Amino acid sequence: MAQEEVQNGGPEKVAEVSFTALKPQLMVEAPKAADAVQFYKSAFGAVEAGRTVYPKRKAEQEQPHVLSSQLELAGSTILVSDIADNSTPVKTDGTGCVLCLETEDVEAAVAKAVSAGGVAEGEVTEGDGACCGGRVGKVKDPYGYVWLICSPAKKCGDAEA
Amino acid sequence: MAQEEVQNGGPEKVAEVSFTALKPQLMVEAPKAADAVQFYKSAFGAVEAGRTVYPKRKAEQEQPHVLSSQLELAGSTILVSDIADNSTPVKTDGTGCVLCLETEDVEAAVAKAVSAGGVAEGEVTEGDGACCGGRVGKVKDPYGYVWLICSPAKKCGDAEA
Repeated sequence: MAQEEVQNGGPEKVAEVSFTALKPQLMVEAPKAADAVQFYKSAFGAVEAGRTVYPKRKAEQEQPHVLSSQLELAGSTILVSDIADNSTPVKTDGTGCVLCLETEDVEAAVAKAVSAGGVAEGEVTEGDGACCGGRVGKVKDPYGYVWLICSPAKKCGDAEA
Repeated sequence: MAQEEVQNGGPEKVAEVSFTALKPQLMVEAPKAADAVQFYKSAFGAVEAGRTVYPKRKAEQEQPHVLSSQLELAGSTILVSDIADNSTPVKTDGTGCVLCLETEDVEAAVAKAVSAGGVAEGEVTEGDGACCGGRVGKVKDPYGYVWLICSPAKKCGDAEA
């Protein structure tokens, strides 16, 4: 039981594994992914680097569902995908994943996101943001995701010296 | 109504806003964030770059809740935070945020994550991953988050030429 040496010829033990990229993938109720991509462009200036779509299955379907749209945002890549009712559920049951975006101008970023259709939750506040920065605003997008718009992270502890 | 020009002296209209970083923040039911950090280290080789904690409030509390742990992983930063029952809910109601990790060795990465306490969901499959890569495995971590372990993204379309 306690010995699991390499019994079934696994991939050379569980040695070094290195990861080349981390990409949050936002699942959106089909067929709203295309709209979500448009929102992330308008709200945050995301740039779409590519998109793959499912084969069109239904005659009445106006546009094919998005398997994955790759969006460049703040030096990272996020993926936006349609998830249909009948597809394998990928719903996480974690307490919730939030996306922190750092910017020098929190107020302007929140205003821009709101003008694109996001909903500001609460005021921009100073301080105890988990991003460890200065000012923090919160915007919920039309697809249910929460974005924290934060001042760039500083070394913790030197808040308002 | 339709005129909103710059009525209340907003921050110089809603001009250019640039973002310097995007950091997914995983909320974990308090006080499990510290355990989650340990899991992400063991499972994925994440490196903790910093941690801020809440002031200790309760005598019986063994360790202070984590406001934010900054983990370096695959060239990105993720934040892991305790979220207490009585704190402002940040729960997103999106259809679900999944984290795609790209690696050359999907099988080894899945095996390592499973040996650290993750649960593999289904087999590693070839193909239609939303990450647009070759092989894709899925691991749910003990905190409810789903990780897709994928081959590095290629240009879409040249799958198995």
